[in-house]
Amino acid sequence: MQFHLNGFHVGDPAIAKPSARARSYGDAVPDTVDVLIVGCGPAGLTIAAQLSAFPDIATCIVEQKDGPLSLGQADGVACRTMEMFEAFGFRERVEREAYWVNETRFWSADDSDRSRIVRSGRVQDVEDGLSDFPHVILNQARVHDQYLRCMENSPNRLKPHYARRFLDLDVERSDEGASAYPVTVRLERAGPERRGQIETVKARYVVGCDGARSGVRRAIGGTLAGDSANQAWGVMDVLAVTDFPDVRFKTLIRSAEEGNILIIPREGGYLVRIYVEMDKLAENERVAARNITVDHVIAAAQRVLKPYTLDVKEVAWWSVYEIGQRICDKFDDCANDQSDGRPPRVFIAGDACHTHSPKAGQGMNVSMQDSFNLGWKLAAVLRGHCAPSLLRTYSAERRAAAQELIDFDREWAGLLSNSHQAAQGGNKPEVDQSEIQRYFVQHGRYTAGTATRYKPSMICGRADHQHLAGGFEVGTRFHSAPVIRLADGKPQRLGDTLVADGRWRIFLFADEADATLQCSRLQSVCAYLESDPASPVRRYTPAASDIDSVLDVRAVLQQSHHTIDMSAMPDLLKPSKGRYGLIDYEKVFCPDLKNGADIFDMRHIDREKGCMVVVRPDQYIAQVLPLDARDDVPSFFDAFMIAAA
Amino acid sequence: MQFHLNGFHVGDPAIAKPSARARSYGDAVPDTVDVLIVGCGPAGLTIAAQLSAFPDIATCIVEQKDGPLSLGQADGVACRTMEMFEAFGFRERVEREAYWVNETRFWSADDSDRSRIVRSGRVQDVEDGLSDFPHVILNQARVHDQYLRCMENSPNRLKPHYARRFLDLDVERSDEGASAYPVTVRLERAGPERRGQIETVKARYVVGCDGARSGVRRAIGGTLAGDSANQAWGVMDVLAVTDFPDVRFKTLIRSAEEGNILIIPREGGYLVRIYVEMDKLAENERVAARNITVDHVIAAAQRVLKPYTLDVKEVAWWSVYEIGQRICDKFDDCANDQSDGRPPRVFIAGDACHTHSPKAGQGMNVSMQDSFNLGWKLAAVLRGHCAPSLLRTYSAERRAAAQELIDFDREWAGLLSNSHQAAQGGNKPEVDQSEIQRYFVQHGRYTAGTATRYKPSMICGRADHQHLAGGFEVGTRFHSAPVIRLADGKPQRLGDTLVADGRWRIFLFADEADATLQCSRLQSVCAYLESDPASPVRRYTPAASDIDSVLDVRAVLQQSHHTIDMSAMPDLLKPSKGRYGLIDYEKVFCPDLKNGADIFDMRHIDREKGCMVVVRPDQYIAQVLPLDARDDVPSFFDAFMIAAA
Repeated sequence: MQFHLNGFHVGDPAIAKPSARARSYGDAVPDTVDVLIVGCGPAGLTIAAQLSAFPDIATCIVEQKDGPLSLGQADGVACRTMEMFEAFGFRERVEREAYWVNETRFWSADDSDRSRIVRSGRVQDVEDGLSDFPHVILNQARVHDQYLRCMENSPNRLKPHYARRFLDLDVERSDEGASAYPVTVRLERAGPERRGQIETVKARYVVGCDGARSGVRRAIGGTLAGDSANQAWGVMDVLAVTDFPDVRFKTLIRSAEEGNILIIPREGGYLVRIYVEMDKLAENERVAARNITVDHVIAAAQRVLKPYTLDVKEVAWWSVYEIGQRICDKFDDCANDQSDGRPPRVFIAGDACHTHSPKAGQGMNVSMQDSFNLGWKLAAVLRGHCAPSLLRTYSAERRAAAQELIDFDREWAGLLSNSHQAAQGGNKPEVDQSEIQRYFVQHGRYTAGTATRYKPSMICGRADHQHLAGGFEVGTRFHSAPVIRLADGKPQRLGDTLVADGRWRIFLFADEADATLQCSRLQSVCAYLESDPASPVRRYTPAASDIDSVLDVRAVLQQSHHTIDMSAMPDLLKPSKGRYGLIDYEKVFCPDLKNGADIFDMRHIDREKGCMVVVRPDQYIAQVLPLDARDDVPSFFDAFMIAAA
Repeated sequence: MQFHLNGFHVGDPAIAKPSARARSYGDAVPDTVDVLIVGCGPAGLTIAAQLSAFPDIATCIVEQKDGPLSLGQADGVACRTMEMFEAFGFRERVEREAYWVNETRFWSADDSDRSRIVRSGRVQDVEDGLSDFPHVILNQARVHDQYLRCMENSPNRLKPHYARRFLDLDVERSDEGASAYPVTVRLERAGPERRGQIETVKARYVVGCDGARSGVRRAIGGTLAGDSANQAWGVMDVLAVTDFPDVRFKTLIRSAEEGNILIIPREGGYLVRIYVEMDKLAENERVAARNITVDHVIAAAQRVLKPYTLDVKEVAWWSVYEIGQRICDKFDDCANDQSDGRPPRVFIAGDACHTHSPKAGQGMNVSMQDSFNLGWKLAAVLRGHCAPSLLRTYSAERRAAAQELIDFDREWAGLLSNSHQAAQGGNKPEVDQSEIQRYFVQHGRYTAGTATRYKPSMICGRADHQHLAGGFEVGTRFHSAPVIRLADGKPQRLGDTLVADGRWRIFLFADEADATLQCSRLQSVCAYLESDPASPVRRYTPAASDIDSVLDVRAVLQQSHHTIDMSAMPDLLKPSKGRYGLIDYEKVFCPDLKNGADIFDMRHIDREKGCMVVVRPDQYIAQVLPLDARDDVPSFFDAFMIAAA
């Protein structure tokens, strides 16, 4: 954390100085806003928290419910999501409170007595070194709480407007001559006092994070398409006494005759979530028609668990649902072929654009990644740093990611369910336990959320220079590694520098030459970035702003931090900032040689040539380039960024 | 964190359900309290936070100032203190916000040009493996904030009563026939509305944490004795621009002619604290007489730093002080020879009983350790678990620790100051830099706060069986190590189980026998602890309480967690608790074999015999005993604990 740059302030540095906008915050929704977010789920809160970092952006988030969620449905938090939580500053809080998924255990019918289950396998949940952070399980409501605190501590003191039902929206159809706020949204108040009152908000952009029955999706003519499901599942969060020994492990149990259950231990040491395979549904039958009660769900779980007992003492929450994987054909209000030739004004994110079964634990994670992808793009366009055409990449990137999820989920849900398999044709062989285990391990990176790879686009380069840094794959999320900060010897994760502040980052990995020499590639590229009129740092940074306010350049040297002084670093890497011109000492890092964790080895960086790794504000790697790629750098950024006035 | 034991609750689990006492909280101090704490410094807040964990204890904390401290003076947080912060649940928050002291650097006069300084050495600040947590620097006010939040989230929602000046107290002199609340304290209100109004509080116990000019100390006839000082130092927290390359390291600079400075970088990346040696004072002269201004302090620092420049942009705080090491002859209201034959009723802690120079960064840490030592003892006596004679150990243990600090501080302050040395007789040789560096390394454990070793007493055994666990030294703080939790495979620090809840902990380290066999020493001692009428677990635990509510027994096995099931563990290690009889799965641990961190090797535990490590509520090791020490266990506890009704 960096603070006190523009003078010493008492109090909690995580609480920003309130902006003028914070003081004007009221009960009614504002007449005009830059961004209106519909829905306070994980997707809505992620983008609200992201936008709240910018005092110059007017954001409003509305929610149909009367107040914050107290009891959530989703609970899985993938490693990748924890990396994003770190960017928002609350990763440790989640780590402290959550259940950690360390291993997954597999049980199946005992060969010698098919009425009993026995343990048939165990696998490590996340492969070593995949992420700095664990895979955890935490009530969705508590994830919301973290975002709400972020928003309340932000300059604008953003708070949701609850009890607002989305009615409809209208977009001015021509950007030619369009008003500054081309989207008009009507909301109906639902609170006890002003029920039925209609509020009209004019917005530059609208983001629909309003769930599977999204009104925003309907308003832009989007429809969910995909499989209908014919398998009912029950899910319950219970406090129970059991002699089943693996009840505190994530456990998949496949009985011979009684179906399958999935155990997900929950935070606090006692609560456990159990997914239970219920009856097969008839064609076009909905689960509601079956009148399944929680007693049915408990009894089904008890049958699967035999010979172990399950004595449920309290049901904190339960539900039944049918499996179904559906996706919307477009995630914004533009035609997919872009035949309308205008940038989008309305977006949908999260369950509004894709639904899937909960058992892969992906729903909440993919939803948050949706809106984390969109948040910085909206901010960049609204703040005049990028052209509106940037916004088209949202639907392209996230629809592909959602389709991958759907495909994965369909396969996984199928594997998990014997009966589902059988129903799909009857002639498929039963999937054996070892295959499920193999599949689980093989797809570990997928469930950890680290397998997403964006395709080449205006903001994601081709992998022409991938060989310079094999461990930083273009299009994937930046894979952190340990480093030592040069100026103060602090051991830290390099990824922790990727805070959710909307900035691009350029990591300069030093070449073989002594980094203190001006002839080194490192010093040479710094000189270029700092002084050349074509340098993106010069080109996109407003004259009155700190030099790192748009593009944040940092370096990783090859030497130990004991062999080099900050004073030998170029000014770009120890910039003077703020009203006093204080020096920022947090730009240069060295490998953690003492602990044998050399980032150059871990990420396969070319030690002779070094390289430049360009990282997007959402932590994805946009480019790996040679340190002397003078032309590639400006041409990449020029495709979507706007030169500063 | 464990929660939901007695039913699922929504919301933040760190916020306790409010007690009846919480609802009766008002503006006026209560007429009667169990414990009255005078002073909201680090010592007062530590004990207030500790006592606030107990809904059955009525605590009141008063403070002379109008509100919480916003700008602190102390800033050093030793590793040992971070271990205590972990017990209170806010260690990560401090880690995120604080400056981390990673290395200390030494500069001295250049041999070839004595007017310039050059770097003469660097040492790692904390030796590897000494603690799980870093040595950090954070504004004292922010440490206060953490404790205040703990207190507000506690069952009693404890908040300080500000604007109360301690006037005097009176203790009923005979415990024979004494009233329930034998200490009467008079407070004067200082707020704008009720200025001068006198409040009288009757308390069972009073803790004076009211600083170097303690009124409570005066009231019990205590006096500070020790050296007077004749060396003035300046200290300032500044935002400055400098070309001195080590300004973000803790750095000791000893110039040839211009004196010494100590640089302590501060949280946030820009602020820095500088201690500056100022003029020598005449005999009996006070620093106030010198009229030293901040400009003098800055100018002195600039002279020492030559040839480097220091351009101070903002002074956040500054002060001048004289070095002095003083200690009170007693830390409670009893005679030191205990000739009055009664347990103490009034205690003093922190600066009220010892003062010293700030440069060793020990003051705030030792103060907090004082009251962490006292807190659990007061709670145990008030809750009827222990006899009041236990309270005598506070003064004995903490006065010895304070005397060690005074001795260390005197030596360190002397070493740091050439001129001070010279003044002490003139014939001492100048201390050279390498000697200071050697001393610094040698005393690393002291400054980390981990060197404290309590002497044998009723609550600290003799080291007769120390050979069974060489790395858990009796009388020192429990030295954590990595383990894997058996029931869910979670990698964690064993020390994280030592939360500040007033419970004793008995760690059973397994012997060589298979831990699943009843004939193993481990299972045998569990059977004894659970069932034998002489077992302290049986003897001291009230019948209606959970079996781990007074003595928390946990085990560490030698096997991998893959080779053993929870089901094979005795009931004592998977106890049924709470209104539902839910099983507590967090009692059994295994070594972290995969990462090569075997706690049995790290802490030199006898693999053949195993052992029992008894840990006090303040995280200090009271006993190391054989697993079959049937007589030693009850006799140890019987000396101070009271059998449950």
